[in-house]
Amino acid sequence: MRILLVGTGGVGSAFAAIAARRDFFEAIVVADYDPARAERAAAVDERYTAAQVDASDEEAVAALCREHRITHVMNAVDPVFNMPIFRGALAAGADYLDMAMSLSKPHPERPHELPGVKLGDEQFEMAEQWSGAGRLALVGIGVEPGLSDVFARYAADHLFSEIDELGTRDGANLVVTDEQGNEIFAPSFSMWTTIEECLNPPVVWQDGEWHTTPPFSEPEVFDFPEGIGPVECVNVEHEEVLLMPRWVDCKRATFKYGLGSEFINILQVLHTLGLDRTETVRVKGVEVSPRDVVAAVLPDPATVGPRMTGKTCAGLWVTGTGKDGQPRSTYLYHVVDNAWTMEEYGHQCVVWQTAINPVVALELLARGTWSGTGVLGPEAFDAVPFLDLLTEYGSPWGQQELDPAPAG
Amino acid sequence: MRILLVGTGGVGSAFAAIAARRDFFEAIVVADYDPARAERAAAVDERYTAAQVDASDEEAVAALCREHRITHVMNAVDPVFNMPIFRGALAAGADYLDMAMSLSKPHPERPHELPGVKLGDEQFEMAEQWSGAGRLALVGIGVEPGLSDVFARYAADHLFSEIDELGTRDGANLVVTDEQGNEIFAPSFSMWTTIEECLNPPVVWQDGEWHTTPPFSEPEVFDFPEGIGPVECVNVEHEEVLLMPRWVDCKRATFKYGLGSEFINILQVLHTLGLDRTETVRVKGVEVSPRDVVAAVLPDPATVGPRMTGKTCAGLWVTGTGKDGQPRSTYLYHVVDNAWTMEEYGHQCVVWQTAINPVVALELLARGTWSGTGVLGPEAFDAVPFLDLLTEYGSPWGQQELDPAPAG
Repeated sequence: MRILLVGTGGVGSAFAAIAARRDFFEAIVVADYDPARAERAAAVDERYTAAQVDASDEEAVAALCREHRITHVMNAVDPVFNMPIFRGALAAGADYLDMAMSLSKPHPERPHELPGVKLGDEQFEMAEQWSGAGRLALVGIGVEPGLSDVFARYAADHLFSEIDELGTRDGANLVVTDEQGNEIFAPSFSMWTTIEECLNPPVVWQDGEWHTTPPFSEPEVFDFPEGIGPVECVNVEHEEVLLMPRWVDCKRATFKYGLGSEFINILQVLHTLGLDRTETVRVKGVEVSPRDVVAAVLPDPATVGPRMTGKTCAGLWVTGTGKDGQPRSTYLYHVVDNAWTMEEYGHQCVVWQTAINPVVALELLARGTWSGTGVLGPEAFDAVPFLDLLTEYGSPWGQQELDPAPAG
Repeated sequence: MRILLVGTGGVGSAFAAIAARRDFFEAIVVADYDPARAERAAAVDERYTAAQVDASDEEAVAALCREHRITHVMNAVDPVFNMPIFRGALAAGADYLDMAMSLSKPHPERPHELPGVKLGDEQFEMAEQWSGAGRLALVGIGVEPGLSDVFARYAADHLFSEIDELGTRDGANLVVTDEQGNEIFAPSFSMWTTIEECLNPPVVWQDGEWHTTPPFSEPEVFDFPEGIGPVECVNVEHEEVLLMPRWVDCKRATFKYGLGSEFINILQVLHTLGLDRTETVRVKGVEVSPRDVVAAVLPDPATVGPRMTGKTCAGLWVTGTGKDGQPRSTYLYHVVDNAWTMEEYGHQCVVWQTAINPVVALELLARGTWSGTGVLGPEAFDAVPFLDLLTEYGSPWGQQELDPAPAG
């Protein structure tokens, strides 16, 4: 296996650090638009070669694949560049993996009721070309989407006879402090992207079809395990809702993000004032995008790892009927402590938790344990070997039985 | 009486429109840094002459006074320019009025406990020069400070034998809508100034001394009269707290602004994110002040009048012992309906309510009903003729008896 890693930001760099401890591949070409950043990420292993690439240029991606006889393209850049990388890989005869899917566009008239172009639609439209070429595009194989989708398959195969809801629930108790030890507001992910994700109309799968809602809908306090505790979660547009129902029978699929009431409030205020806007405004003779200004006043998420404490939890809350015919409510989850990832890998827990999953998936593909063609989500594959290998990597998952009494 | 009006923003223009209906003065020189703006404000009356002036230039203010044989300088610009106008008037032998006092500076070590330089300190330091010259500086004679201070004097002279608290309480139910009739967030006053005022440490007079608190302290829901109803109010730094105890005996003086919980929340979020900062940040190659960006994304307060509905209330809540020796709790207030000010004067209610009070005061000074020398607040004068003349202007005040049972 010869991998092309496209993108050496937070997640790409963590991918390189995690893969360096495994022997399932022959080589990784570590590529970035910024050659110096690629060099730094490639320095961790002698099987790595740095390269420069423009991720928006399909031909350049294909050429780099051919030059290095790439078998698998690992896309670790912003999903705005998904399509050129996806097409470039196919053109060069390589398999492809990503951790976020092609972007959505809201419904032009009824954005808070109906989906417009959905996440991943552009990629799924090319499914026959991938299967026709005998090649695999494994889409959405980060932690969420990714591990959450593996949990969905596991629940369907081993825990439930009938599933009411596949409810991805993400929460954390991460705290960032300044040099004086005072808690500060510092998102662990790009504020620009968080605004985009959280203000897009969330999508829900219900009784055989997708619909959308206004932002921050259906707030719910979910009690996260391993000491994280209760966090306010709201519907957010996310790939799981589009992926899971394609392979796993369920009445309902949701994604709720544990933003917490403070963060939700901040996003709502930014929206009320129009500070989420990307179009520029004129301010004392200069033109700036308000959203860029918001991102600029906050600490760079790439630098907050050493000043961050706490744990992050990704997981799937499944409700329905167990294999025994009784009502069942189970939370399948993966918790990572920032202190551990910083000490072990030098990467903060949120990006590390995203990056470990495609390494595990590539190892299963290299072994032949996982195989397939077409455009497939993680739930199209057997979950057990994935979960076992994740545990073998030193990062076990958990299972918690909840009270199956219906909430409503 | 020959008046120099310095500043033709919202309040200055409303002052010119209100004074035009009165005959107590001979002439007004209407001056602004922007000559076109001065011309527009001066066009409403043939006794008015437009002039250009730099309010930061003490000599220029004095020269303009001498040129036009000015007897009274009416300061209607941002209080950052108070001192040059105040000094320029004295140098030219004119009396002086303003509606906000010289600025404060927080205590360098304990900003949320002790005052540093207080509002008006710079002006009061020159009190002997004013009285020595036989000239009057009547400071803080807008609506708040201004009418609120007149209410304090009225309460002390006519309603109370002993005062526990002089509590200025300001609230409104103003709503601004967009072209489609949807309610939008649009402050009726400069957002830049509102941030400045509300994030400065509020000052409180208690038992013979001033102290400060953190921003937004001591929240309280006050039920405003004439249909406005309950609004959440918090301590805000304001001149009344510095003025009233100098002339009126009281155990406590406070100013609480009915920002409402939504506006308080917005200001707190802006502060949490650092978007209240005035120092520039670098955003994609340009330098901008985050606070300027916040102001730039919101509608211009000068333009919202026609799309605004509702009433604004300025008032003073007095508690203590009545003239009959019984506990008493009285709210003295002035409510203005935006529909009325827009129709009658073409100015929105918040600026109109500020501007009417110095017109009334100048008329009392012209008549000789009010007279004095030195640096004096409105509570240094007899309140009754002021309140009677305000009513004669068509804008009556009100009095509401409240339950005198102590709140705590």
